[in-house]
Amino acid sequence: MSISETSAPTTPEATPVAPTTPATPAAPAPPAAPVAPGRGALRPLGLGDVRLTGGFWGGWQEVNATGIIPHADAWEERVGWVDNFRRALDGTLVGHRTGREFSDSDVYKLLEAMAWEHGRTGDAALDARIREVATLVARVQEPDGYLSTRFGRPGQGERYSDLEWGHELYCYGHLVQAAVARLRTGVHDELVDVALRAADHVCAEFGPGGPRDGVCGHPEIEPALVELYRVTGEPRYLETARAFVERRGHRTLADIEFGRAYFQDDVPVREASDLRGHAVRALYLSAGALDVAVETGDEELFDVVREQYRRALARRTYLTGGMGSHHQDEAFGEDFELPPDRAYAETCASVASIMVAWRLLLATGDAAWGDVVERALHNVVVTSPAADGRSFFYTNPLQMRVEGAPVDPDELSPRAHAQLRAPWFEVSCCPTNVARTLAQLATYVATASDDGIQLHQLAPATIDVELPDAGRLRLEVVTGYPYAGEVEVRVLESLDAPWELAIRVPAWAVGAATLDGEPVPGDGRVARVRRTFRSGETVRLALPMAPRVVGADPRVDAVRGCVAVERGPFVLAAESVDLDGADVGLLRVDPATVRAGEEPGTALVDGVLLDPEDAAWPYGPGAPTEQEGGRRVTVVLRPCFGWGERGPATMRVWLPTR
Amino acid sequence: MSISETSAPTTPEATPVAPTTPATPAAPAPPAAPVAPGRGALRPLGLGDVRLTGGFWGGWQEVNATGIIPHADAWEERVGWVDNFRRALDGTLVGHRTGREFSDSDVYKLLEAMAWEHGRTGDAALDARIREVATLVARVQEPDGYLSTRFGRPGQGERYSDLEWGHELYCYGHLVQAAVARLRTGVHDELVDVALRAADHVCAEFGPGGPRDGVCGHPEIEPALVELYRVTGEPRYLETARAFVERRGHRTLADIEFGRAYFQDDVPVREASDLRGHAVRALYLSAGALDVAVETGDEELFDVVREQYRRALARRTYLTGGMGSHHQDEAFGEDFELPPDRAYAETCASVASIMVAWRLLLATGDAAWGDVVERALHNVVVTSPAADGRSFFYTNPLQMRVEGAPVDPDELSPRAHAQLRAPWFEVSCCPTNVARTLAQLATYVATASDDGIQLHQLAPATIDVELPDAGRLRLEVVTGYPYAGEVEVRVLESLDAPWELAIRVPAWAVGAATLDGEPVPGDGRVARVRRTFRSGETVRLALPMAPRVVGADPRVDAVRGCVAVERGPFVLAAESVDLDGADVGLLRVDPATVRAGEEPGTALVDGVLLDPEDAAWPYGPGAPTEQEGGRRVTVVLRPCFGWGERGPATMRVWLPTR
Repeated sequence: MSISETSAPTTPEATPVAPTTPATPAAPAPPAAPVAPGRGALRPLGLGDVRLTGGFWGGWQEVNATGIIPHADAWEERVGWVDNFRRALDGTLVGHRTGREFSDSDVYKLLEAMAWEHGRTGDAALDARIREVATLVARVQEPDGYLSTRFGRPGQGERYSDLEWGHELYCYGHLVQAAVARLRTGVHDELVDVALRAADHVCAEFGPGGPRDGVCGHPEIEPALVELYRVTGEPRYLETARAFVERRGHRTLADIEFGRAYFQDDVPVREASDLRGHAVRALYLSAGALDVAVETGDEELFDVVREQYRRALARRTYLTGGMGSHHQDEAFGEDFELPPDRAYAETCASVASIMVAWRLLLATGDAAWGDVVERALHNVVVTSPAADGRSFFYTNPLQMRVEGAPVDPDELSPRAHAQLRAPWFEVSCCPTNVARTLAQLATYVATASDDGIQLHQLAPATIDVELPDAGRLRLEVVTGYPYAGEVEVRVLESLDAPWELAIRVPAWAVGAATLDGEPVPGDGRVARVRRTFRSGETVRLALPMAPRVVGADPRVDAVRGCVAVERGPFVLAAESVDLDGADVGLLRVDPATVRAGEEPGTALVDGVLLDPEDAAWPYGPGAPTEQEGGRRVTVVLRPCFGWGERGPATMRVWLPTR
Repeated sequence: MSISETSAPTTPEATPVAPTTPATPAAPAPPAAPVAPGRGALRPLGLGDVRLTGGFWGGWQEVNATGIIPHADAWEERVGWVDNFRRALDGTLVGHRTGREFSDSDVYKLLEAMAWEHGRTGDAALDARIREVATLVARVQEPDGYLSTRFGRPGQGERYSDLEWGHELYCYGHLVQAAVARLRTGVHDELVDVALRAADHVCAEFGPGGPRDGVCGHPEIEPALVELYRVTGEPRYLETARAFVERRGHRTLADIEFGRAYFQDDVPVREASDLRGHAVRALYLSAGALDVAVETGDEELFDVVREQYRRALARRTYLTGGMGSHHQDEAFGEDFELPPDRAYAETCASVASIMVAWRLLLATGDAAWGDVVERALHNVVVTSPAADGRSFFYTNPLQMRVEGAPVDPDELSPRAHAQLRAPWFEVSCCPTNVARTLAQLATYVATASDDGIQLHQLAPATIDVELPDAGRLRLEVVTGYPYAGEVEVRVLESLDAPWELAIRVPAWAVGAATLDGEPVPGDGRVARVRRTFRSGETVRLALPMAPRVVGADPRVDAVRGCVAVERGPFVLAAESVDLDGADVGLLRVDPATVRAGEEPGTALVDGVLLDPEDAAWPYGPGAPTEQEGGRRVTVVLRPCFGWGERGPATMRVWLPTR
C-alpha cells in the first residue's frame, strides 16, 4: 500500500520559515497541529480549524487547562527541574542538580503543552510563562548550541559520553517539539531560536558528514527533526533525522542489562518485523521513521514500520490500547504475552501509539487508524490523570490485586506504580505527555482533503475549513458521545459545490450503525455523504450503544476463561468499591446477563463472589473445578478510565466466567 | 506450635571451638552438615553419616564434582573475581576491579561448595585450592577485620557508605558460611581465621553497643552468624545476628525505587504477615530469623516466620516450588500472582527456600517440610544446571513462549535470562549456590532422634549413625526413585534395642502408598516402623508412580483453564522439540488421556495443535470460543528439570484443556 493511497498529495511542500523571522511564520500558515506532513492522503486541521465545544473531550481539555498544566508547572518548580537551569546560570548546578538525567525534557514537554494551549486559547499568562522559561533555557545554551543541565560542566560527564542513558538528544527532541508548537501556533519567540540552534548543533555533530555517528538511547529527536523540517523547510533536519533512523540497529550503542532491543539498536528499523524493547522508545522511533518515510517518499520504510505496528496491534496490545507487558524494562512482551495484572501499559506508550496511528491515518487515509486513536485515548491517556488533573497513573494495568495505600498529594512518588494516582514522580514523563496531548486534542477530530471533510473522532466540535475544491465550510458536531450514540453533523455554511462528509464508524459499530436512519452503505466502516450541501442541513449517524461482551484470542493465555465488557469506546472494569469492598478477584460472572447500567457508560452483570479457603498447597489433583455456589451479586461495571477515583480499590477488566 | 513439638531438644548446647584451635575442632564433632541447631525435634546428620550411593541425587553430586565446581572455579578466575583479591594486594584494584559489588561473595560461596565437597570426598586438590584462595583473602583483610574488594580504598566508596546496595555484610555472610563448612568438616584453616576476624569485626561495628546500627541491604549475615555461634559457642555472634533481625523493618535503609519492602526493611520481621520483596533476601532473612528464634528460644519469632513461609507456600509459590513472580525486582508478587511465563523463580530463591524448610523440619520434626525440599530440589535447583554442569538457568519460568538463541559457551551472559542456559552471568549467584547445595545433598536425606531415624528424601544411600537410645545403626536405602516407586530400606546393622524408622510419604502419595504391602497406617503421611530390628531386615515403601493431573486454586488467574502433569516428585513439561518444533503454546490437551510414557518419569497426553489466524485486533465479540479441530497430536511430557537440553525450544508446564 502506498503512503497516499486514496488521493494525491494534498498539501504543498513545507514552506520555509526563516529562523530569524519574528512573530509570525510566512503564509500559508501551517496548521496549528502536531503533525503536518508534506504529503499524504489527508490534511490535518489545526486548533484554529477545529474547536471542541464541550462533552467528554472538551471536559478533559478543561481539566488540562485548569489542572494538569498549572499542577505540572508547580511541581517542576517544586522539585527543582526548572531550578536546574537557574543553577546552571549562577554556577551552583553541579552537586545540586535535581531529577533524573532527562528532567530537562519534562520542562520542554510542558512548554510544548503550554504552547498548544496558548495556541488554542491565546492565554497571555501562558505565553509569558513560556517566554520566561525560554529566556532561562536560552541563557544556559552554549555558543555552539549544546544544551543540557546534566552534562558538559566540570564535575559532570562529558557531553555525549553516555548516549545509552544520557538522553541529551531526547531532550533536544522535546525542545524542538515545543518550538514546532510555537511556530505552528504563529509565534516565533526565543524558544524557537534556542531549538533551532540546538537542531543545527545536532545536525553538525550527528548529521551526515558530522563527527559523531551515534544515536540516542531514547528515540525522539527523529520525529522532532522531521517536524522542524516541515515547519522550516530546512533539509538538513530531514537528512539528520533520516541518518538517525538508518543508523539505529547497527549496534552503535553498548549492550546493556536489558539487551540492545531495549533501545531498538539490535536490528535496523527496515529489517525488523516486530515492535520490541522499551515501548515508548519503539513507538517514538516508529513515528520518526514514518515521518522520514513520508517526507522522502520511502515506501519500503513506510510499509515496514506500518507492518510492525500492525503486528503489535494484533499481538502485543491490551484491550485498552495500552502497550508494554514488562515492568522490568517498560517493554513489549512476546506475542500474546499480555498479563492484565502486570500490564505496564505506560501512559506515555499510549501517547506514542497515538502519534504513530495518527501519522498512518494522515498518510494512508484509512479511517481504521482512528479506531486505535479512540481506544488509546479513552482507555489509557485519560485513565492516567485524576478528574482534577492533579494526580496520575504512570502504568495502566487491567487488574489491581490489592488496594493501594492512599497517596499523599504533597509527596513526590519515588517510583512508577499504579495502585493509586500520585501527584508527581521522580520519572514524571507521563503527566507532561498527557498535557501536551490533551492540549492538541481538537486536532485529532477531523481532517480535510481537496473535496471533503473526514470526521475521525465523534466529539462535540465546530469545524471551520477551506477546501480547495469546495471553498469554505463550517460544520458543527452535536453529540453526547462517548456516552450516547447519536452524532449529528450540522452544516452551518457551505458553498454551492459538492463535497464529501466522511465519518468513521467505530469498528465495534460496523454493521449496526445507521446513517440518516439507513444502514451505512458499503463496508460500513465509513459513513460517507457526497453532495452539494445547503447551509442548515444535517447528517445523523447513530451507533449501537448497548454494552458488548468481548473475548480474547485463545493465545492470550493470561485471560483464558474470561470476558471483558465494553460500551461505546470505553472498556469497562469492576471495582471493589462497587462490591462493598469485596475483592473483585473472587468475582465470577455470567456473560449472558450483561446489560446497560443506569449511569451513562456503565453496564451491569450478574455473578457470584467465591469464598475459597486456603489449602496448604494451592495445587491439587484433577482438573480444577470452581467452587459451586458463592454469594450472588449484581455488579456495576464502569469505564476503566475512572477507576481509583473513589479511594483504594481492587479492580479488574477481564472477568472470569462461571 | 512450639519449636520442638515432637520431642525435647536432643542435642547438647553447641560446644565452643576456640578461635585459635588449629586443625580439628574439639569433640564431639559437629555434624558435617549446613544447619546444626542447638535444639529442635530432629538432629541433622552429616556427610559422614549419610552417603549417596548413586541414583538421581548421586548423579547430580557427581555433576557438581566434575562439572559445576571446576567450571565455576575457572569462570571466577576468567572474569577476574579472584583477581580482584590479587589486585588488592599489588595495588592495581581501583579502576580495574571486575564484577558486581557482591562478586566477593561468589568466591566465598564456591569456597563453601569446595569445603563441603572436600568434606565428602577428602579430595586433596580441593583442600589445596581452598587454602590457596584463603591465603589470598587473608592478605586482603584489613587489621581490624574489614574485608572487601569493593570499598574502603582511595578511589572507592567508604566502607559501609552504601548499606542498601554495597553487600559488604552479605559477603561476610558467605565467607562465614564457608568457614562453618570447614569447621564442620573438621578443618580449621586460614579461611576460618579470616571469617572469625570478619565476624568479630561485624560484632564490634554492628553488634549491640557498637557504633553502627544499620542492616545490610541483602540479608545473609544473619543465618551465617548463628551458624558460627553454633560451631564456636561464641554468644556475640548470636547476639549480633539477633540485633540484625530485630533492627530490620525499622527503616534504617534508604527508600529505593522498588520500595523498602525490597529488602524487608518496611515492616519488622515479627510484625510482618507475608514474605515480600526480593525473594532471596526475604528467604535468607527467614532462615536467619528462624536460627535466632531456635537458639534464643523465641517461640513468637519462630511462629511468625513459619506462618509467613506457610502463607508464601499457600499463595506465592509456583507448582515447581519456585518463588518470585516479578522480574523487575526479583520479588514475590501479590497473593496468587503466579504467571508461568513471567515466573522469575530464581534458582537462588529455591536454594533459600530449602534453607528455610530444612530449618523448620529440624525444629518441628514435621515431615511435611520435606515435601517442600523435594519439590524445589527436583524442579528448580537441578533445573538450573545443564546435565554437564557447565551452563545454568538463572530464572526458572514454567512457560517459554519463544525459542532462545543458542548461547556461546565462551561468552559471559550480561543478564539473567531463561531462554537457554548460559555458562556464566555478570550476576552469577546461582551457579555457586547450586554448587554448595549439591555438595551438601546427602545431609538432607535423613535425620536422627534419640530413638529413631527419619528418612526425608528417597535416594539410594547408606546411613551410619549412633542413636542415644539404640546405639549404632547402619542402613542402606535401595531405590530407583524418583523414577520408580519402590523404596527398600535394608537394616545392615542394628543392636538389640527398639528404634523407629520413619519414612516421609510424599504428599501426593498419601493414601495410596503401601508399607510392606499394607496401607501406610495413621494419617499416611509418615510410614513408621518401630521395633527391634535384626540386621538384614528390610522395610519396603511403595509409592504410586502413575502420572497425575493437577489443577490450581481458582485464584491463580494466570493458569485458568489449564492442567499440569506430575509424575513422582517431578513436574512435567511439554517442549516443542517433542512436537516437531511446533509452538507448544498452541497445544490443547485432554486431561483424561494422561498416561505413563515409555521413558522413565515421562507421561503422554492426547490433544490438538491449534492453527489460529491473526485478526487485526485480537479481541472480538462474545465469550471466546476456541477453534474446533486442529491437528491431533500425542505429546510426551518430560520432567521440567531437563528442558532446554535439546536446543532452542518453546515449553510449557500448564497446558490449556480443550
